[in-house]
Amino acid sequence: MNIFKNPPRENWRNLCERPQLDLDSLTGTVKNILENVKRSGDRALIDLTLKFDNVSLEQLEVTNDEIQQSEKYLSASLKNSIQLAARNIQKFHAAQKRDVLTIDTMPGVTCWRKATPIEKIGIYIPGGSAPLFSTVLMLGIPATLGGCKEVILCTPPNEKGGVNSAILYAARLVGVTRIFKAGGAQAIAAMAYGTESIPQVYKIFGPGNQFVTKAKQLVSEEGVAIDMPAGPSEVLVIADETADPSFIASDLLSQAEHGPDSQVMLVVNEKVTVDSIIKEIKNQLETLPRKDTAEKALANSRIIIFDEESAGIDFVNEYAPEHLIINTKNSDEVAGKITNAGSVFLGAYTPESAGDYASGTNHTLPTNGYAKAYAGVSLDSFVKYITFQKITQEGIKTLGPIVEEMAEAELLQAHKRAISIRLKQINS
Amino acid sequence: MNIFKNPPRENWRNLCERPQLDLDSLTGTVKNILENVKRSGDRALIDLTLKFDNVSLEQLEVTNDEIQQSEKYLSASLKNSIQLAARNIQKFHAAQKRDVLTIDTMPGVTCWRKATPIEKIGIYIPGGSAPLFSTVLMLGIPATLGGCKEVILCTPPNEKGGVNSAILYAARLVGVTRIFKAGGAQAIAAMAYGTESIPQVYKIFGPGNQFVTKAKQLVSEEGVAIDMPAGPSEVLVIADETADPSFIASDLLSQAEHGPDSQVMLVVNEKVTVDSIIKEIKNQLETLPRKDTAEKALANSRIIIFDEESAGIDFVNEYAPEHLIINTKNSDEVAGKITNAGSVFLGAYTPESAGDYASGTNHTLPTNGYAKAYAGVSLDSFVKYITFQKITQEGIKTLGPIVEEMAEAELLQAHKRAISIRLKQINS
Repeated sequence: MNIFKNPPRENWRNLCERPQLDLDSLTGTVKNILENVKRSGDRALIDLTLKFDNVSLEQLEVTNDEIQQSEKYLSASLKNSIQLAARNIQKFHAAQKRDVLTIDTMPGVTCWRKATPIEKIGIYIPGGSAPLFSTVLMLGIPATLGGCKEVILCTPPNEKGGVNSAILYAARLVGVTRIFKAGGAQAIAAMAYGTESIPQVYKIFGPGNQFVTKAKQLVSEEGVAIDMPAGPSEVLVIADETADPSFIASDLLSQAEHGPDSQVMLVVNEKVTVDSIIKEIKNQLETLPRKDTAEKALANSRIIIFDEESAGIDFVNEYAPEHLIINTKNSDEVAGKITNAGSVFLGAYTPESAGDYASGTNHTLPTNGYAKAYAGVSLDSFVKYITFQKITQEGIKTLGPIVEEMAEAELLQAHKRAISIRLKQINS
Repeated sequence: MNIFKNPPRENWRNLCERPQLDLDSLTGTVKNILENVKRSGDRALIDLTLKFDNVSLEQLEVTNDEIQQSEKYLSASLKNSIQLAARNIQKFHAAQKRDVLTIDTMPGVTCWRKATPIEKIGIYIPGGSAPLFSTVLMLGIPATLGGCKEVILCTPPNEKGGVNSAILYAARLVGVTRIFKAGGAQAIAAMAYGTESIPQVYKIFGPGNQFVTKAKQLVSEEGVAIDMPAGPSEVLVIADETADPSFIASDLLSQAEHGPDSQVMLVVNEKVTVDSIIKEIKNQLETLPRKDTAEKALANSRIIIFDEESAGIDFVNEYAPEHLIINTKNSDEVAGKITNAGSVFLGAYTPESAGDYASGTNHTLPTNGYAKAYAGVSLDSFVKYITFQKITQEGIKTLGPIVEEMAEAELLQAHKRAISIRLKQINS
């Protein structure tokens, strides 16, 4: 980790830079995959699964039997943990429901706004080294709470043509309606365009590698909504001299193990003994199964020392971290000054991993500085708000002349006439 | 307008097609403009304004004096109308504010969610034939309500190097902080990257031509958020035999005058005399200043007759119109069955133009079928919700083992350790 002390503000832009993904170079490859799936449907998916996942599938959809069997392979204690986590996530997201909002803006002019489920949504869960059943909870729970009718899930098959049992168990628990064995850009294409087996959806959620990210970007240009632009995961820890160096090190490493392109940042004041934190990181690193990955991530990472707390906070807001851990004695006060972050963890006993799995908040969050303008996934990500209005004869008599005046000034006579023709009829 | 009677469902996809915009062919041109502004800042903007708008500017920013002068050129009655419209829009959007939501998901595990303003936003207002000061209200009011600190506006100068007075007046009224003379893709670039005069923003809002739309799409791939993907404006009117043909015709024409690529759709039951509506359209068209535009739009447009009301409603939801006017005797009942639309207008006295200007709802809405997954602009478009959590020692004792179990099953040992190291310290 590189160390910087009181870097001048003109250097902050560089210090906020993330490891770059060059997605443009993938455009051609991913476009070909999308075209192939659009043209050949299931056939393309089966061929591409053989090519990329080395498995020959006869059927894309996971059977009810496979789903039911999954339960047998999980310990009672893991199932219990998944259920408790699901309950917390359910609680926090259910509280986000909004009633219909109705306002009479003028007498006879009633306007309202109603959350309406996105009817069909798709969840992508990557395969690879870590079976991300926690993401099934994070996306499936608000989807069913939001009232989405069709909630499908695509995930690549393992080398035996099966799907990880915890993923299947979590999917059934949260009410995913159908599960398909499909991975990579081809799975995104299947959900965007539909195939013989896989239904077309209106919005696609979930993490993935660079091919998946590029595919989501490309289909979003064609009108399919996506959860958010994705980049490698990241954490920023802001700590003072009261923070336990071993806690800090464990939090930094829990992010670093995600991937070699993850970024971990540490912002401290000058009273913090940075050496002891670095020593802790080295010690803990030694016994990590994903040591190689974490080491690569640490190479992208920075420790920044600020004498002034306010400069540290300004830097955090400029960085706009996906995850922000505030491990200081005045964590509430610091949290009150945070304007840009995905999810914030306050105090010594609130590690990021609590929110990654089970505290109740969502773990699908904006990376790469997107927290300046984007929020993480919430119940609102699964509904859209439709506005309605109803105007009475009395209402249009008051409102109508205002509209006529404005339409005239915008040189839109037909807009004006839609009012005038009604006023004339009322007055006749 | 083409007429279809009870079209079979397999034909609906074709009937829902919008006039296509080929934005891909613009990519090269727009990328060059973006690069040029990124490289040369104000100099590029001044050169491009001379090239495209035929005006030589010395200064990009509109002066306070210009803004104050604008008031003189507007009638008292127009100013009054703008103020009343602003008051309604303010009322409806202010009611969308959400309190901080705090939930204890478990004892000692407190999670909350807080709306936080997007600090810097940009509004684009096109020049051209209609001076869209109403859009200044629709974007500026929720921006200032949401607490955005910097709300800038770019709009192309007219042939004299000035800006339309109603645009300036509306901008001042709603609290836009700075106004710049810049149009087209170059204005989008300026707001995305920043120049010497124009500050960089985190999210860009507003309508525009195909170059503006393409520029917004391209900068959104680089991490600047945008309001929504845009296409030509559209309305669908669903009417029964109780609807006045002259009202229907006026509503269809008020959309058709927007642009030659606008689409207007009419869905009726078999009791409606379609001929009388067509006759009304022809009559009203004759006296419209924008007759040529409206005629071209009508060529893209369709009348669809369904014997069954439920089929008509299914079709509406499949089409997912930006604007939906329900001019039927049972408009409340029909509205209750609408699942996909941007904004819905109920009853005989609720023309779309009421919502376009002054009733209080927003007029920045999803086109091109995007209403299946996207909502229109609202107060939420100007904030992002940050989640927070704070866990006590007691809380982590209960929650910790759940997280450990799940992290272990996802093969993420460092995630587990961030918990274990804390539990160990508590228990020691």
